Amino acid sequence: MTGLQAFGWEFLGTAVLLLLGNGVCALNSLRTSAARGTGWVLITLGWGMGVFVGASIADPSGGHLNPAVTLMLAIKGATSWALVPWYIAGQLAGAFCGAILVWAAFKQMFDANNLDEQGNVTGANHSTNTIFFTAPAHPKNGWNAVTEFIGTTVLLLFIAFGPVLKQGDSLGPLSYFGVAFVVVAIGMSLGTPTGYAINPVRDLGPRLAYSFILPIRDKGPSNWSYAWVPIVGPLLSAVFVGLLAVAL
Amino acid sequence: MTGLQAFGWEFLGTAVLLLLGNGVCALNSLRTSAARGTGWVLITLGWGMGVFVGASIADPSGGHLNPAVTLMLAIKGATSWALVPWYIAGQLAGAFCGAILVWAAFKQMFDANNLDEQGNVTGANHSTNTIFFTAPAHPKNGWNAVTEFIGTTVLLLFIAFGPVLKQGDSLGPLSYFGVAFVVVAIGMSLGTPTGYAINPVRDLGPRLAYSFILPIRDKGPSNWSYAWVPIVGPLLSAVFVGLLAVAL
Amino acid sequence: MTGLQAFGWEFLGTAVLLLLGNGVCALNSLRTSAARGTGWVLITLGWGMGVFVGASIADPSGGHLNPAVTLMLAIKGATSWALVPWYIAGQLAGAFCGAILVWAAFKQMFDANNLDEQGNVTGANHSTNTIFFTAPAHPKNGWNAVTEFIGTTVLLLFIAFGPVLKQGDSLGPLSYFGVAFVVVAIGMSLGTPTGYAINPVRDLGPRLAYSFILPIRDKGPSNWSYAWVPIVGPLLSAVFVGLLAVAL
Amino acid sequence: MTGLQAFGWEFLGTAVLLLLGNGVCALNSLRTSAARGTGWVLITLGWGMGVFVGASIADPSGGHLNPAVTLMLAIKGATSWALVPWYIAGQLAGAFCGAILVWAAFKQMFDANNLDEQGNVTGANHSTNTIFFTAPAHPKNGWNAVTEFIGTTVLLLFIAFGPVLKQGDSLGPLSYFGVAFVVVAIGMSLGTPTGYAINPVRDLGPRLAYSFILPIRDKGPSNWSYAWVPIVGPLLSAVFVGLLAVAL
Repeated sequence: MTGLQAFGWEFLGTAVLLLLGNGVCALNSLRTSAARGTGWVLITLGWGMGVFVGASIADPSGGHLNPAVTLMLAIKGATSWALVPWYIAGQLAGAFCGAILVWAAFKQMFDANNLDEQGNVTGANHSTNTIFFTAPAHPKNGWNAVTEFIGTTVLLLFIAFGPVLKQGDSLGPLSYFGVAFVVVAIGMSLGTPTGYAINPVRDLGPRLAYSFILPIRDKGPSNWSYAWVPIVGPLLSAVFVGLLAVAL
Repeated sequence: MTGLQAFGWEFLGTAVLLLLGNGVCALNSLRTSAARGTGWVLITLGWGMGVFVGASIADPSGGHLNPAVTLMLAIKGATSWALVPWYIAGQLAGAFCGAILVWAAFKQMFDANNLDEQGNVTGANHSTNTIFFTAPAHPKNGWNAVTEFIGTTVLLLFIAFGPVLKQGDSLGPLSYFGVAFVVVAIGMSLGTPTGYAINPVRDLGPRLAYSFILPIRDKGPSNWSYAWVPIVGPLLSAVFVGLLAVAL
Repeated sequence: MTGLQAFGWEFLGTAVLLLLGNGVCALNSLRTSAARGTGWVLITLGWGMGVFVGASIADPSGGHLNPAVTLMLAIKGATSWALVPWYIAGQLAGAFCGAILVWAAFKQMFDANNLDEQGNVTGANHSTNTIFFTAPAHPKNGWNAVTEFIGTTVLLLFIAFGPVLKQGDSLGPLSYFGVAFVVVAIGMSLGTPTGYAINPVRDLGPRLAYSFILPIRDKGPSNWSYAWVPIVGPLLSAVFVGLLAVAL
Repeated sequence: MTGLQAFGWEFLGTAVLLLLGNGVCALNSLRTSAARGTGWVLITLGWGMGVFVGASIADPSGGHLNPAVTLMLAIKGATSWALVPWYIAGQLAGAFCGAILVWAAFKQMFDANNLDEQGNVTGANHSTNTIFFTAPAHPKNGWNAVTEFIGTTVLLLFIAFGPVLKQGDSLGPLSYFGVAFVVVAIGMSLGTPTGYAINPVRDLGPRLAYSFILPIRDKGPSNWSYAWVPIVGPLLSAVFVGLLAVAL
């Protein structure tokens, strides 16, 4: 695996992950979507399936799609440190581009979102920001980081100690089903306090794309003061689980 | 695999796919169905399961069920060009007949659909057309083709690069679960702008059957001006992913 | 496999199938159940999971649990004709006992079902009969038999031609997941016209237990005039698919 | 496997199981959770996924997570009696700590749960006890024990006779999917009469943590008079299925 190959496959897989993951939020939120307001079963199954598809497509690079996974595996010794920057760069660029693809797939619905049924502008509709990046239910970011740390730790314990990586450290087809199930589990059980980013680029990539690039009218706030939580919580968890995997 | 065998298995599998796929739309829409209005989780899981069953039954021919899959695999070199017309003919004929089977399975519900609770005719009930073929939420067909292109590309990237075809280019049992999951993922994440045909015959076959054959009263419009979108979008995606698979 | 072994494992597996399958209907229907009225996604997933568990437990006898499966496999030559009566007897007895187990598990809820919130009897509550056996949405039983025939045919085509039985005609662990998915698919796509028995004993066993044994107050009608439909439709389908499997 | 290893892995896996399982109840119940009131499909899928993740993480010790599983396997001869106390101690301690982790992940939501939208205390909100431990729908505990016995028996029959343990008594990756499915099945079919503990520590661990440790305001009652039911019912089932497995 060269650095460029790692970059490329992680780029492709993470772009598909965010296309599908932000997509389920768009499909559940936009005014003219037939599935508007379906709710948490749809959102959690959709994100889990998105991880399944994205990780499967990125099979040649191991389907990390998440800097916390890459960092944990590097500490564990299963991924070369020299490749880590390539992995993370591909993941961030992929997440950024996946958010743009969601906009393209839902272009007409985004345009119609702040209109009423007669097509008149109704003023700002800020709910489009939560389609792209996470927001906490309550304001204390220390506790929000605890929630992100706990959720990411469930994911990383599964990858580090579950039977996923047991067969020669290669991820077989069954692994992708397993990763889908664990992401559904985290979303259904720990998802609502912080929106379960459990992945720094899943939050940062779309936050950048939404704030600086996407031509959506009447955008909601970018909420940069929260942006460190879904970066720091998951990375601290990666250090914790990585050291635990070395010790055990 | 002879041409006739390819035709036969693809016919059978695609007929089952459309029987189940159009079936979930009938079950969710018809007036006297106990599951009326259940919504998007039911629709997307139902279509995904339908792909699982149809593709499994068509295992001898590889379970394509979709001209975009066949075309991509032919460009990739995994399916013989000489068989492509047999595959596509079987798929289109199967989709046409699957739509007729749905009508038979729901015969009494279709008959009761435009009656009121006392059995009196209430006039036209056009919602039966969306049971059979897709319709977009917004009218600009260029953007609708973009949505169909993106959705189909997710499906084809999964088939081309995911671990599905890695084991000697034969589709093992686990592959059918994988294809079910990717179709659920696309429906849950990208489904509402265009109804996610992501397959030319899934839309064209039932549109022909509904418009010209099925004895349903007070039919809705056939909307032929939209019919090119779920053909052209998926086939362009097949060319794109096929060339990408050759290059990588 | 002796006849007695076939009887025993099919008895056990079918008892669990009906315990779980009738259970999901009780859980979705009874007045004091916290899940009352959840709807079709719950019902179809619950029945599919019930088939998964019941068939897994009956693994030594192949996990048929259904006379239509046994008959089709006998015609196909995969099950000995001498064992067929033992299979079917075990299935019918198991279905009968599974219905009794549901009553035991929900005893207090059945007792409270025809009371109001203050514990006074409110008169007959007939909805308990549909917990146990199927009922059609519309009265023409010829068309209802067509629906049962089509649904069963999807199940049997999957078993006969899907990759389930390909590995030496033994059902490996993955097969049980596959059978669960196909039963979910049929329920989500073809379930509401007739309640998708697609299995003679699934309907007859609980109908006998409910009508003649169970001490439930204010029972609904046994509706024996419909009872032939979920027997004849599935068995005709077994003959059809069995002959098709011999021919192909 | 040493006793300490058994303790450690069962502790870790059961802590994750209760974190996720109690988590789905918190997510479905707390006032400021975006998924509040989603209902039984979410709850049952969430618990099933939680078992999948917890059992996978505890793969080195076999992923029992449940004294009833350990006891049945010991009677069957698949687990050493000398390890049984280590297994059960790890399970109980893990369940206790998992409940504490749920509180940490939902800290701000627990704090806001008995406030109104303006932040004023509204008095006791007792629904937080049902987030942690089970409660029956009706008061007769003999019948509730029957329900717990039946539900646990389905789980243990699946583990004892299904294809899960057939491959050399080691639990391969597919087993964890199987165990998830059977737990979903039990929840969807038999869950509402007693809340389907089907595991003594799943109920006792969080009941202890909630009653004696967790700093939640306006707690609901601990309901110790019910606490024996989800202990005795599952353990009697373990004896029954264990003896059956020895006999067959």
